[in-house]
Amino acid sequence: MRVAVAGTFGPLHDGHRALLRAALELGDDGVVVALTSDELAGAERTRSVPPYDRRADDVRAEIADMDEWGRDVSVRRLADEHGIATEDPSIDALVVSPETVPEVETINDVRRERGMDPIRAVVVPYVYADDGERISSTRIVRGEIDEHGNVRK
Amino acid sequence: MRVAVAGTFGPLHDGHRALLRAALELGDDGVVVALTSDELAGAERTRSVPPYDRRADDVRAEIADMDEWGRDVSVRRLADEHGIATEDPSIDALVVSPETVPEVETINDVRRERGMDPIRAVVVPYVYADDGERISSTRIVRGEIDEHGNVRK
Repeated sequence: MRVAVAGTFGPLHDGHRALLRAALELGDDGVVVALTSDELAGAERTRSVPPYDRRADDVRAEIADMDEWGRDVSVRRLADEHGIATEDPSIDALVVSPETVPEVETINDVRRERGMDPIRAVVVPYVYADDGERISSTRIVRGEIDEHGNVRK
Repeated sequence: MRVAVAGTFGPLHDGHRALLRAALELGDDGVVVALTSDELAGAERTRSVPPYDRRADDVRAEIADMDEWGRDVSVRRLADEHGIATEDPSIDALVVSPETVPEVETINDVRRERGMDPIRAVVVPYVYADDGERISSTRIVRGEIDEHGNVRK
């Protein structure tokens, strides 16, 4: 199965790691990491986001660390929200967090219109911080938690 | 990954086949088919449902036909809606259709309460009949379409 996973991935945290691990585990025909461009990453956010090259380096380092399967991985710049998944017929599945599932139906509508096969979604459970709230980059930037979900005093 | 797929699977159609195929493809550590008991299958339906043994035979024949990976498959009787998935800690993922995704969050809440790891959902796209409506057992029983989604004259 050829698998894509999309996101901003910065600052990187254990929720991202769960997504990347699922993509690697399932992507026996290859893994595409669709990493948001700085413009797309900044479009709906007020918090600061590390620059693309920094995020790409961090994702590559993380993958090198966890890829026990030796997958064929490429990191590609995602310039619009449903790009890559609606454009690349070779992708079979998209690894997502629960909140992103409805977007896969939108993506599949576009793919069907374009004569492409619809894709599967692999939904990875949320990862929670010590305080029972979800881990997120926003919470890390705010200084509430670290990348593993430990609450900062 | 150890994968479960749940349903009534009768009359069997191409939508069910897409679910079973995904479960077989991904279930390298085993596949559990959670097949609704006659009581559960009848509880929310007015249409006729083939008896459990007939449905189990059909599912097994279908799997024998499509299992090119030689998976370890077991068919188990599902007596209540979220049984098996909330009870078996060895399951890593549940293969579902898009409408069933929200139930996986409910299942994961129960699993977390019970100290079990949450599971992934693998969402398989709907399969459509020739008329652009979804294939369903109800439509087959009504005589509208055949098991492959061909519209009956």
